[in-house]
Amino acid sequence: MSERFFASDNSATVHPAIMEALSEANRGHAIAYGEDEWTEKANRVFRDLFGRRAEVFFVYNGTGANVIGMQGVLSSHHGVICTEVSHIHCDECGAAENYIGSKLLPVATSDGRMKPSQILPLLSARGVVHHSQPKVVSLTQATECGTVYDSDSVREIAKICHKNDMYLHMDGARISNAAVALGSELGDITGRLGVDILSLGGTKNGAMFGEAIVVWRPELAENLRYIRKQGMQLASKMRFISAQFATLFGTDLWRENAAHANELAQALAARLHDIPGVEIAYPVEANGVFARLPHAAISQIQDEIYFYMWDAEADIVRLMLSFDSTMEDVEALVAIVRKHVS
Amino acid sequence: MSERFFASDNSATVHPAIMEALSEANRGHAIAYGEDEWTEKANRVFRDLFGRRAEVFFVYNGTGANVIGMQGVLSSHHGVICTEVSHIHCDECGAAENYIGSKLLPVATSDGRMKPSQILPLLSARGVVHHSQPKVVSLTQATECGTVYDSDSVREIAKICHKNDMYLHMDGARISNAAVALGSELGDITGRLGVDILSLGGTKNGAMFGEAIVVWRPELAENLRYIRKQGMQLASKMRFISAQFATLFGTDLWRENAAHANELAQALAARLHDIPGVEIAYPVEANGVFARLPHAAISQIQDEIYFYMWDAEADIVRLMLSFDSTMEDVEALVAIVRKHVS
Amino acid sequence: MSERFFASDNSATVHPAIMEALSEANRGHAIAYGEDEWTEKANRVFRDLFGRRAEVFFVYNGTGANVIGMQGVLSSHHGVICTEVSHIHCDECGAAENYIGSKLLPVATSDGRMKPSQILPLLSARGVVHHSQPKVVSLTQATECGTVYDSDSVREIAKICHKNDMYLHMDGARISNAAVALGSELGDITGRLGVDILSLGGTKNGAMFGEAIVVWRPELAENLRYIRKQGMQLASKMRFISAQFATLFGTDLWRENAAHANELAQALAARLHDIPGVEIAYPVEANGVFARLPHAAISQIQDEIYFYMWDAEADIVRLMLSFDSTMEDVEALVAIVRKHVS
Amino acid sequence: MSERFFASDNSATVHPAIMEALSEANRGHAIAYGEDEWTEKANRVFRDLFGRRAEVFFVYNGTGANVIGMQGVLSSHHGVICTEVSHIHCDECGAAENYIGSKLLPVATSDGRMKPSQILPLLSARGVVHHSQPKVVSLTQATECGTVYDSDSVREIAKICHKNDMYLHMDGARISNAAVALGSELGDITGRLGVDILSLGGTKNGAMFGEAIVVWRPELAENLRYIRKQGMQLASKMRFISAQFATLFGTDLWRENAAHANELAQALAARLHDIPGVEIAYPVEANGVFARLPHAAISQIQDEIYFYMWDAEADIVRLMLSFDSTMEDVEALVAIVRKHVS
Repeated sequence: MSERFFASDNSATVHPAIMEALSEANRGHAIAYGEDEWTEKANRVFRDLFGRRAEVFFVYNGTGANVIGMQGVLSSHHGVICTEVSHIHCDECGAAENYIGSKLLPVATSDGRMKPSQILPLLSARGVVHHSQPKVVSLTQATECGTVYDSDSVREIAKICHKNDMYLHMDGARISNAAVALGSELGDITGRLGVDILSLGGTKNGAMFGEAIVVWRPELAENLRYIRKQGMQLASKMRFISAQFATLFGTDLWRENAAHANELAQALAARLHDIPGVEIAYPVEANGVFARLPHAAISQIQDEIYFYMWDAEADIVRLMLSFDSTMEDVEALVAIVRKHVS
Repeated sequence: MSERFFASDNSATVHPAIMEALSEANRGHAIAYGEDEWTEKANRVFRDLFGRRAEVFFVYNGTGANVIGMQGVLSSHHGVICTEVSHIHCDECGAAENYIGSKLLPVATSDGRMKPSQILPLLSARGVVHHSQPKVVSLTQATECGTVYDSDSVREIAKICHKNDMYLHMDGARISNAAVALGSELGDITGRLGVDILSLGGTKNGAMFGEAIVVWRPELAENLRYIRKQGMQLASKMRFISAQFATLFGTDLWRENAAHANELAQALAARLHDIPGVEIAYPVEANGVFARLPHAAISQIQDEIYFYMWDAEADIVRLMLSFDSTMEDVEALVAIVRKHVS
Repeated sequence: MSERFFASDNSATVHPAIMEALSEANRGHAIAYGEDEWTEKANRVFRDLFGRRAEVFFVYNGTGANVIGMQGVLSSHHGVICTEVSHIHCDECGAAENYIGSKLLPVATSDGRMKPSQILPLLSARGVVHHSQPKVVSLTQATECGTVYDSDSVREIAKICHKNDMYLHMDGARISNAAVALGSELGDITGRLGVDILSLGGTKNGAMFGEAIVVWRPELAENLRYIRKQGMQLASKMRFISAQFATLFGTDLWRENAAHANELAQALAARLHDIPGVEIAYPVEANGVFARLPHAAISQIQDEIYFYMWDAEADIVRLMLSFDSTMEDVEALVAIVRKHVS
Repeated sequence: MSERFFASDNSATVHPAIMEALSEANRGHAIAYGEDEWTEKANRVFRDLFGRRAEVFFVYNGTGANVIGMQGVLSSHHGVICTEVSHIHCDECGAAENYIGSKLLPVATSDGRMKPSQILPLLSARGVVHHSQPKVVSLTQATECGTVYDSDSVREIAKICHKNDMYLHMDGARISNAAVALGSELGDITGRLGVDILSLGGTKNGAMFGEAIVVWRPELAENLRYIRKQGMQLASKMRFISAQFATLFGTDLWRENAAHANELAQALAARLHDIPGVEIAYPVEANGVFARLPHAAISQIQDEIYFYMWDAEADIVRLMLSFDSTMEDVEALVAIVRKHVS
């Protein structure tokens, strides 16, 4: 079994610069729960990135960021429009339903992206007391299928949201990969397009732990402080999250890490595409490659190297690249695939 | 304002040995969510400490450990008997009520400890559909007042619980300090006394983040896996929690850190006790000193050094010692107190 | 606008025999919350109908019966397999998600019925902590589309449930109509087929208010008492629910009422079927007729008589018959339809 | 065992005029869920009573009214200030905690009444993320101890609430008894004093089932429609609740029923007071008499007539009078008490 994985960008190490930031933060006493100099610095970094109206709330992980961030605007009789493959719908063990109480309203998708035209039909539930009332649209950027929304789509969806008294939430566990793919700054593909609440990922892009909720509406910021605490997401030794984020997003590290992973995904996709019998399932736009493989070959390949099935019925596997993946890893995987697909 | 604090053991740094363990864990790819070699090692460490029946679930923080651990045995119509000063009742922003749904049933306490005799009267609610049904007793060890339950009391409470079809939960955010105070091993003051679910603290005793839920009943272990995930408490890069706990509890580090803090608490208490006008409010048995100070002096002292009021009406302040507190810190605090109390 | 409706069987009056039972129960003092002679009698009636193991819990309405009944066996990390048109999924404003916390796992349906083969694929989520764990299958009998499960299907689904450590819930808001359609006794199409929890409807079949939860597993009965109270579903003057159910189900009234409604549905369907341009959308097996009408005609007909759209995209309307519908009502509706469809 | 009870005003029958109203409403088809003529009439009655800004939402029972009414203004991180004997705290099996998610913050009381001075100290939790944030004060009128708030106290508490961005909720399960006691109209002791949300009782004052939530803030009304449906409290055959309330509150029936019960309470208290060894525990101001009896006599009396212990430690029993209690009932009870207390 190979010691190098394509299972998830969560299999990766912590970037050395992040480790250094953790060491640097490990000096002296600091007031707990965020009133420390490292959090102050991280706050400045985030305001530079996302604008003066932006407020940031650090939490422990992505599920926490999604749940707590949306809870700030949702009541239990509300609904969240998301895709049928969204992480909040498929991979959080029903956290949104239990902790927010809201119903998820999934729409079909062919490549991970929601179409703006899918939203309005769901608003026919509005005003009918028997139905959950749509209040949030949640997009994942980059999507769970490794695709990326262009900015026009996000802007259009944001407009639909705001015109209909809804909020736009973005699950940005891989927002850095999306920004690199679009050649854009983080602020330009989120708040400036109309995103109201962003789950901003760090762990999948070189951090040890921690994610950030960014909100652009001051009326949401007050409640989130309490909801985060109640939601078991307020770190006591906060400086050790803040220091990571100040380094990751206060320098170009986020961009370099994501660019590296995206480039390797392109390289892997190109090589797999050349193997007869292998088909690339979705456009490769971020750091994931989704490939349709011959059914019999999949388990043979999995015997040699670790990755996940994405769609068992369609024989599509998911191959994730991370900041610490190497071209050697890619070549090794390609060789194993080539061996079993022939 | 002093750069050294007595606000909380959360103000402390991370112990160098923990930092080293984090660095050591930062190599190669690892399967996310706990199927890695560091978690395997931590599991072995915990079974050595707590016995073969014990299962451990790492989570992010103390509120998470308390909520997720108790959620495994509670339904919403159940109640939790705890003290009126317990962390779950006072300092978790209603997390238990919202996320478990259960009612907390607080009992009065003079020094943080619940008396075994306080439990039975609450069981008169049993069988009456209008009342929440007591199902868990939750003790904090060491208590929020810096006192420690002796083993006979815990054993007696455990017996009452089990005889009445209830579970005993222990909030052990400072269990290491209690073990040192009692001169006992961790297993001897928890599972072996009848504790069913333990929130075992690391962050307040030298770790960076992470706490552990230990359960001694196999029937609880299956559900907890899902509840932890749903509860936003499943770390993807789990190895970085596991490595900390394997180091902290796989060596004598937990004991040394706690012993140091406890000793400094004794030293501080002795010196404060000698100052006329200062009164030690509760027996100093762990790493906290609760002192009654002259009303006017409190804010003057707080202007120079950071700590929290415990009981504003009674002029009692809370002074917490940690593994990285020093005798110089203690002397500096005593000098400041002495200056303002005269 | 016609004063007679086809909007819902909820538009109907209360059957005179039920009104009489309410009057009869209105004498003397009675202990509240169910310890009265009428509830005792209703319990006997239910044991006669459903067997000695059956326990009954009266609640206020159908949403209450569904939520409280399922809550007795569900934890928040569980999932409920249901159809995409099920009342619990579409018409209870997210009650299951908010009050139970569980995720609903809807499957596609062409006529309201779930196929046994649709269940097993969802069990691939078993054991994966990121996914809600299927624990209940919920069938509606008669379905929301006016069709009826045959007993073999229910038995087969029950077997799948029990083999896989799941419970079978039946939303029987119109179970009387189903029993009549199948020519069966109520016990023979529920508990004896393997149903574990039944929401038994009264309001749609001649009662004023109230539904019943019937469970066939003693281990569920203890918790339900508390869950019902907490769930705002425990009536203080319980005798006035019990008296209705003792009359409705202690005589043949349930059967007569349902038979009348079913027969009128057949009569209506036959007449509509004869109108060119009208198509019966689903088999008419209970007391609802679902008809596809010419798009332009629908709003014209709705201007004259009250009923609901079922599927706006497919131009399918829902026409419900109740115990107090008459052949004159049917003829009047048919005449209006005929007028506008030509 | 006597067939006449003093256990609860819930043991009573339904007033004949209410039965008549139910019969009258039982004609023709009516649109479900409240769009019917009886509900329209009840709405008019309530606007006459409570003013034009008042909106009414009928629900099934008192727990439903309390939970749904407060849920409209509460988030899970909020707290509700109530008394330690309040129904929401003691007798709803933790419904508020589970369904709203909010923490209850009970204050001590000697006679069921909260003092205005008890509120401000709890507001020290404001702004501290570790503590539930007080957002609602809930008073019970008449109180669970049979006492009544004078209007000045309610007005003062309302002012404290509004000055501190909180809402005033009134649990008015026995508001009619309070109004009679105060010689006031219902609107004058609720909305006009600053009550924001009222649970208005009907079942304890002659109705069969149903309670009403009255709100005086239009911003609360929109959400309540959905919360009521999700909360399993939306009656399909709504006309049968509305017709009861239109009769009870559209005539003087509410006043007559309450006056009768209050007068009998006075009569009972006077007679008990004359028995040596019996002590009236709280001022008798509504329809309940709380009496301290000789310990040994209590169970002997309970063997003959049905009522509840209120405070077992203090030997205080609760004796409730209702619209259908009679002077003969009172005399019979007094004779039994006299027999055993000597």
